[in-house]
Amino acid sequence: MKAAIFSGPHRIDVGNRPDPVIAAPTDAIVRVVMGCVCGSDLWYYRGDSPHELGPIGHEFIGVVEDLGAEVRGIARGDLVVAPFTYSDGTCPNCLAGVTSQCVNGGSFGNRGIDGGQGEAVRVPLAGSTLVKVPSFGHSDETMLSLLALSDVMCTGHHAAVSAGVKPGSVVAVVGDGAVGLCAVIAAKRLGAARIIALSRNPARQALAREFGATDILAERGDAATAAVKEMTGDIGVDAALECVGTNQSMATAFAIARPGSIVGAIGAPHGVVVPIETVIFRNVGLRGGVSPARVYLPELMDDVLAGRINPGRVFDFETDLDHVAEGYAAMDERRAIKSLVRVGAL
Amino acid sequence: MKAAIFSGPHRIDVGNRPDPVIAAPTDAIVRVVMGCVCGSDLWYYRGDSPHELGPIGHEFIGVVEDLGAEVRGIARGDLVVAPFTYSDGTCPNCLAGVTSQCVNGGSFGNRGIDGGQGEAVRVPLAGSTLVKVPSFGHSDETMLSLLALSDVMCTGHHAAVSAGVKPGSVVAVVGDGAVGLCAVIAAKRLGAARIIALSRNPARQALAREFGATDILAERGDAATAAVKEMTGDIGVDAALECVGTNQSMATAFAIARPGSIVGAIGAPHGVVVPIETVIFRNVGLRGGVSPARVYLPELMDDVLAGRINPGRVFDFETDLDHVAEGYAAMDERRAIKSLVRVGAL
Repeated sequence: MKAAIFSGPHRIDVGNRPDPVIAAPTDAIVRVVMGCVCGSDLWYYRGDSPHELGPIGHEFIGVVEDLGAEVRGIARGDLVVAPFTYSDGTCPNCLAGVTSQCVNGGSFGNRGIDGGQGEAVRVPLAGSTLVKVPSFGHSDETMLSLLALSDVMCTGHHAAVSAGVKPGSVVAVVGDGAVGLCAVIAAKRLGAARIIALSRNPARQALAREFGATDILAERGDAATAAVKEMTGDIGVDAALECVGTNQSMATAFAIARPGSIVGAIGAPHGVVVPIETVIFRNVGLRGGVSPARVYLPELMDDVLAGRINPGRVFDFETDLDHVAEGYAAMDERRAIKSLVRVGAL
Repeated sequence: MKAAIFSGPHRIDVGNRPDPVIAAPTDAIVRVVMGCVCGSDLWYYRGDSPHELGPIGHEFIGVVEDLGAEVRGIARGDLVVAPFTYSDGTCPNCLAGVTSQCVNGGSFGNRGIDGGQGEAVRVPLAGSTLVKVPSFGHSDETMLSLLALSDVMCTGHHAAVSAGVKPGSVVAVVGDGAVGLCAVIAAKRLGAARIIALSRNPARQALAREFGATDILAERGDAATAAVKEMTGDIGVDAALECVGTNQSMATAFAIARPGSIVGAIGAPHGVVVPIETVIFRNVGLRGGVSPARVYLPELMDDVLAGRINPGRVFDFETDLDHVAEGYAAMDERRAIKSLVRVGAL
């Protein structure tokens, strides 16, 4: 089969990989319909994080083509969304709701596991990983939103849940990438009364507003902090969502968070120093990490299928598997928020 | 009046200060019965943190001697416990339950505010700060436990609350100082099923057991982590309470915390680097900070007065105001867990 291959920084190739086959009775083979490029893929693309050479991409939706003997709950022909990590659903971490830390789990496009940027994927622990879409015949718009559930929407939701967003909350979202924009959706969905999106990009500002942002701040650093303080009576926001992973974004999130609140952080950290003095002397907490997407997927899928949320709007560039490198380049150069990769027919 | 005075590192003097008088209608004057030395006092005592020269001590119980015209809820002659920070009870932070970050608040023994290691204290915002003890004639043992509510018991409780300790939790307490030992009480009180206390000091180990610790670990660092992992099926504890403030103790707390859990940290940080990779890639959060003691005091006082908890057991050294320097030295040299300073008659 054809699949995207990481050959080194700035080198995404399209190569041939063995057609995946059932290797364990808990496996499924999924024929990929749509995959995409994640902001976190850019870290290794740019050479800022290590990644083994080989298949890549951890987000996809597709059709079940083959099943191991022990897989329950899904059938050949089902349309499924794959959360970006697979999990057994029964280990202590899964039982605690942290499927992203399953002791028998892992992520797609890593350590020999097929990537979502390819024609097919062997999905380990398929019965407890894949989420079946209960209906067919969806519009392309809905299909894109289903694809967004694979990672970015669940990750933005995790930032909001980790920060304890609740009805009436005043929320700030630091970061206008696909996850930050999905965090705006999540905050609105959880009932936030005011959502301040930090963005200086007109297209992203517009999408943030469409998703529910009530205020847009183009400022950064100390100026952003001062502006948020002024907007909140010098107290800070009830929930600051850190959706970048840099030291500046983390510092801003902590600076604008009110005492007693929690910074919800999901960005892969690069050079981040947590301001421990703020944690202790201003009582600002920190939670987040790798989204347990499998846990969040069913409720978010309900909202996508009912048309209540449209996270697929973050895709503003599209390509196919042969040209997947262009999807990376478009995001790397910030020409695109998020790149869709159309792989196969439904 | 006589009061302890910080004159520089390792120099605690007993000097004269003006008798405090009502300066604002919300003030009260409290004649101190008992004060004590806090582990956090050792930071400036040792020269590790700055502190202005002048009155010190932020923990005390005493008798109300005078009241401003606007003070409600307490009367002359009342026995009261002072939480270590004063607060107005009406600012946005107080209303959010974070009285320790009151926008009009502060702490005793700082910035010109009388310290608890002195004969009397002008208490600002007295009506919303002081907590009246509803009865008299208490044993010395109970008086010590009431004094412990001024800071250490509320601070240990804050660590446990911040980490989300609940019935059935497996808890580890890093740090065997007075606050760590009170955190054991708090964890037990909140229903923890298993409480692992990290301590290598026999007297503190014994007190930890008396307070409810089910397991004692004398190991530190990697050995402690390995031991806790083995005790928890390689998963880690449901709640790790960091009650020291050093980089090693924070690192240990994060290493033994299970995915999805929260490190409850209350130690004043000195050289602490938060392991952000653990926050993000193992989903371990961090909360804590300055205890909103005023919020916790009523419920904890109920338990003290009913004899259900005995945090006053942490006092294992006692002195008087004239010899307060000996109380500091005993703790500095780890001859004492916590030093009581008897100041006045009831």
